[in-house]
Amino acid sequence: MDLITSPDAPFSLNTLPYGVFRPAPAAAARVGVAVGQWVLDLAALEAAGVFDDPALRGRSVFAHPALNAFMALGRAAWDETRATLQRLLAERPLSPIVARSLWPLAAVQMQLPAHIGDYTDFYSSREHATNVGAMFRPADEALLPNWLHLPVAYHGRSSSIIVSGDDVRRPWGQTLPPGAAMPIFQPSGELDFELEVGFFVGPGNQPGEPIPIAAAADHIFGLVLVNDWSARDIQRWEYRPLGPFLGKNFATSISPWVVPLAALAPFRCPGPPQEPPPLPYLQHDAAWAYDIELTATLQSAAMQAAGLPPLALSRTNFRHLYWSMAQQLAHHTANGCALRPGDLLASGTISGPTPDSRGSLLELAWGGTRPIALPTGETRRFLEDGDRLTIAGHCGAGDDRIDFGDVTGSVQPAHA
Amino acid sequence: MDLITSPDAPFSLNTLPYGVFRPAPAAAARVGVAVGQWVLDLAALEAAGVFDDPALRGRSVFAHPALNAFMALGRAAWDETRATLQRLLAERPLSPIVARSLWPLAAVQMQLPAHIGDYTDFYSSREHATNVGAMFRPADEALLPNWLHLPVAYHGRSSSIIVSGDDVRRPWGQTLPPGAAMPIFQPSGELDFELEVGFFVGPGNQPGEPIPIAAAADHIFGLVLVNDWSARDIQRWEYRPLGPFLGKNFATSISPWVVPLAALAPFRCPGPPQEPPPLPYLQHDAAWAYDIELTATLQSAAMQAAGLPPLALSRTNFRHLYWSMAQQLAHHTANGCALRPGDLLASGTISGPTPDSRGSLLELAWGGTRPIALPTGETRRFLEDGDRLTIAGHCGAGDDRIDFGDVTGSVQPAHA
Repeated sequence: MDLITSPDAPFSLNTLPYGVFRPAPAAAARVGVAVGQWVLDLAALEAAGVFDDPALRGRSVFAHPALNAFMALGRAAWDETRATLQRLLAERPLSPIVARSLWPLAAVQMQLPAHIGDYTDFYSSREHATNVGAMFRPADEALLPNWLHLPVAYHGRSSSIIVSGDDVRRPWGQTLPPGAAMPIFQPSGELDFELEVGFFVGPGNQPGEPIPIAAAADHIFGLVLVNDWSARDIQRWEYRPLGPFLGKNFATSISPWVVPLAALAPFRCPGPPQEPPPLPYLQHDAAWAYDIELTATLQSAAMQAAGLPPLALSRTNFRHLYWSMAQQLAHHTANGCALRPGDLLASGTISGPTPDSRGSLLELAWGGTRPIALPTGETRRFLEDGDRLTIAGHCGAGDDRIDFGDVTGSVQPAHA
Repeated sequence: MDLITSPDAPFSLNTLPYGVFRPAPAAAARVGVAVGQWVLDLAALEAAGVFDDPALRGRSVFAHPALNAFMALGRAAWDETRATLQRLLAERPLSPIVARSLWPLAAVQMQLPAHIGDYTDFYSSREHATNVGAMFRPADEALLPNWLHLPVAYHGRSSSIIVSGDDVRRPWGQTLPPGAAMPIFQPSGELDFELEVGFFVGPGNQPGEPIPIAAAADHIFGLVLVNDWSARDIQRWEYRPLGPFLGKNFATSISPWVVPLAALAPFRCPGPPQEPPPLPYLQHDAAWAYDIELTATLQSAAMQAAGLPPLALSRTNFRHLYWSMAQQLAHHTANGCALRPGDLLASGTISGPTPDSRGSLLELAWGGTRPIALPTGETRRFLEDGDRLTIAGHCGAGDDRIDFGDVTGSVQPAHA
């Protein structure tokens, strides 16, 4: 066995993402890291006294069904743990405690990585905001006047967040059919996905105490892939004036493995130019974009039955985002709003500049006017029952590759 | 001592609200009920085996720093507990276990009554929506087309909820001054309160499983007073298209005592007529309004220094709400959105039909155009530093009176 070089191994020693898993259905959930085709049980290592550096010594943070306690410790503890794990996993032969704390990745059950106290969804892709605005509002209001001055966001619902693999039931909802005078109540006919990336907050802030943008990196634990399932017909009718509600809060899926910010350092790059320049509290000198390649694929029930592979719907990149994670975090706390360890801040749909880099079916099929052809002869304006939607992400290639894994879910029929 | 008839006693045997308190700063928080000028320690009663009826026997739900476990048990357990407490507290002399489990209400420290997983704020007062719409949008868009068909709502931030008595720091934020081309970043100049009532969810629902409106009462544990502090200048600039965010999420205050729904039964009454009739999933036969009298008072720092009492700003009533709690709950879950025990659903600002029954300074001073005179010669368009804002509520009078207590907080200056 070699953990790292096995041909199908998704997670290199440079990645080491954190997640919460059960080795068996009846076992207690605990924290692990993924490496190659294995999950390393950090609760077992902790119990054996492996983490004896200053920031972790004597603590119990991994024998928990959530990463919150570890997230709250901050960068020194994260760096120390990552260094320890990289050292231990590079040893040959593996030390006995490591060797007996490995579980096959394919056999464990993954859970949500954190208890998410609050979930915020931004709207930070200029291309997405422009595309959606053009469809939802008069053309001269596509990008609203505030958009270039602040990272627009809203609060999502914590209880709606599910882990990759959980299926999504098509929601019922109130909608106003085109041309109708009165709304109707029926299963959504415009179920969509949104390709997003989210980050987990590490140490939070006290109420009334903003996090300055220069300190943002110390409060970002790591990143996951996000699919913010959306019912466009419900959303379109309900969203004025207080924003999305039932069109969004039935389900948001996230990938189970949290890629530490430290793993992504080699992939930092400049983001899009910002004109007009942001106000000082939103200005940073550093490059705060990340070159993360993202794809969304669709496999209908008929494709699956015919043995056809998923179809790539979208290829985009996290670097396209106009507003950076640092700007999101600084803006979110500028009014003194308290963030807590384990809070999730998502990017909003990531659309790129080209038609094939749009991050939702609403945009890809342009409001239903340009249906997408599937290899079975089916077409898609929005998601149909039985469709499986998967978002995957990675950085780089070869030995430097960093994998996010994926977030996937199937659409179940609406309740009778 | 008589618990019930003492002259200043706010909480009658008919009220028996639940809260979470510490008898001393270093003591563990636990669940109590307020009665007269006392708090009865339910953790002590539970430990003594007092609750031996079927739904509570052998359980531990009160020796917790939150009501969630008790909320989750459902109506049978709530009814049983209430009956037991009313019986015990009517005995003379009090049984020894009750007598030694009473703490003076004025001496205990109150905490948030529940761990609030998700917080939803509705917008269910027609008068408020119309008033605000007229100020924020063109006149012909005051009440948007969806408003009469569904209870509009948005997700607030759980981490921002504080208990009565905690002060509120004036938030900084980005605003667009009238006539300006570019936004600025400064402390909010339009800090406001919102007079609201909220309810706590008891048993929740599984994802994908709506709560039909006929079952709503089984999922409503009890009610509290809510002050949803708002920064109008921040809100006005940020809210399109995704709704309020930093203009709201710096603080929302709630009263510490949760009045059980059962206590309010004598005050049920019909709500406003609904025309057009709501869709079937939002229709109920029963009277679902509650006659709860509500007041908001303001005491400036100068008034306090001069020994002047608080000034009544608003007198309104929960019965004015267009959309009922049952409709809010049925709508919220119609798409399968999961509610959890301890979730808070607030009404939105409760404004009545008359100018003095408006529930926010934005409306009372009509966007700053009609400043309110204070007895010191000061005026108020919005809240100033040092102002104390208090919302109180009760039903009925004399022996039948039900008290909510109050929710209060002072405005602290913005950070330098």
